Amino acid sequence: MPAPLEFYFDFSSPYGFLAALRIDAIAARHGRTVTWRPILLGAVFKVSGQQPLLDIPLKGDYTRHDLARFARLWDASFAMPPVFPFSSVAASRLFYWLADADPARAVPYAKAAFAAAWQQNRDLGTPDVAVAVAAELGIDAQAARAALAAPAVKERLRIEVDAAIARGVFGSPYVVVDGEGFWGADRLWQVEEWLARGGW
Amino acid sequence: MPAPLEFYFDFSSPYGFLAALRIDAIAARHGRTVTWRPILLGAVFKVSGQQPLLDIPLKGDYTRHDLARFARLWDASFAMPPVFPFSSVAASRLFYWLADADPARAVPYAKAAFAAAWQQNRDLGTPDVAVAVAAELGIDAQAARAALAAPAVKERLRIEVDAAIARGVFGSPYVVVDGEGFWGADRLWQVEEWLARGGW
Repeated sequence: MPAPLEFYFDFSSPYGFLAALRIDAIAARHGRTVTWRPILLGAVFKVSGQQPLLDIPLKGDYTRHDLARFARLWDASFAMPPVFPFSSVAASRLFYWLADADPARAVPYAKAAFAAAWQQNRDLGTPDVAVAVAAELGIDAQAARAALAAPAVKERLRIEVDAAIARGVFGSPYVVVDGEGFWGADRLWQVEEWLARGGW
Repeated sequence: MPAPLEFYFDFSSPYGFLAALRIDAIAARHGRTVTWRPILLGAVFKVSGQQPLLDIPLKGDYTRHDLARFARLWDASFAMPPVFPFSSVAASRLFYWLADADPARAVPYAKAAFAAAWQQNRDLGTPDVAVAVAAELGIDAQAARAALAAPAVKERLRIEVDAAIARGVFGSPYVVVDGEGFWGADRLWQVEEWLARGGW
């Protein structure tokens, strides 16, 4: 079995959302699966000294325009969240809690959480919404709420973020295929090319 | 006649170099021409507060790896210049001087200058090399050297850079097609898609 693609993203990253729409299909076309790995860009930016894209003069205006245009190209609905930037801590903790406890539900949760934030105008940054998204998938809301505060779950996310930084992940989305990292939703065509050719 | 594509780039931008390898062919496939517009990213970064890509922790290492990989994908030779970053002032001034005095030679000069910097290990940042590249195309070296110091030529470049910033150009390469801006060599597939569909 060829290794899964590793898909690093932040729930608060709009380009992460766009990549999430396509990454599974790209992998499937080449007989691969995807390991989803939410991270916290805030922690990454502390290391790399970057600032959030939308705050950069000129680049921020471009990005707003580009996001709507990119989503249109892929026939996806897209709307800026009601609060932005928002914290992706709650959704990320729930993801890893599910990945350990009920793995078949982790990726569906990630997709639903992305849709809540970037298509349904819901504030995923609040624990209430992060838990509600889980509940809508049939996950026990009380258990989810307890998981958010569990030291082991907090630690799990911290370890994932540190491991991503140690590996050189500096943005979202960031896809690793056979040891090669590709940054950006606009680079998925190179991920696909890499899979098709088996590298170059 | 449909409007030409406008291709903004900095001679010291490696992704600008990569885009320069393909932009004319992309335009030609869709019955378009390209207006080449060198700019100075240093002046742009003063407005946008960005720092050079290769200086950013994590991102810099990725970029070095990515550039070699990207060039390989496009079967292009690629080598970091002997001095980097380098000033693109001399090459940019010569470009606009040619664009006004002998337009048929301006784009060939740009391509030769890019090749000198990114394939031939020459220090394009020095006036000597910028002029030598022109001389190799049969352009009078003494006239080129005089142009470098001419107030009108200096002013021409300054106006171009200011106009680019006013237009929202914040990086290199940056392509404008029918009023839509696309940033990055990795976005040329969207430029092509825009041309093929007539927008979306």
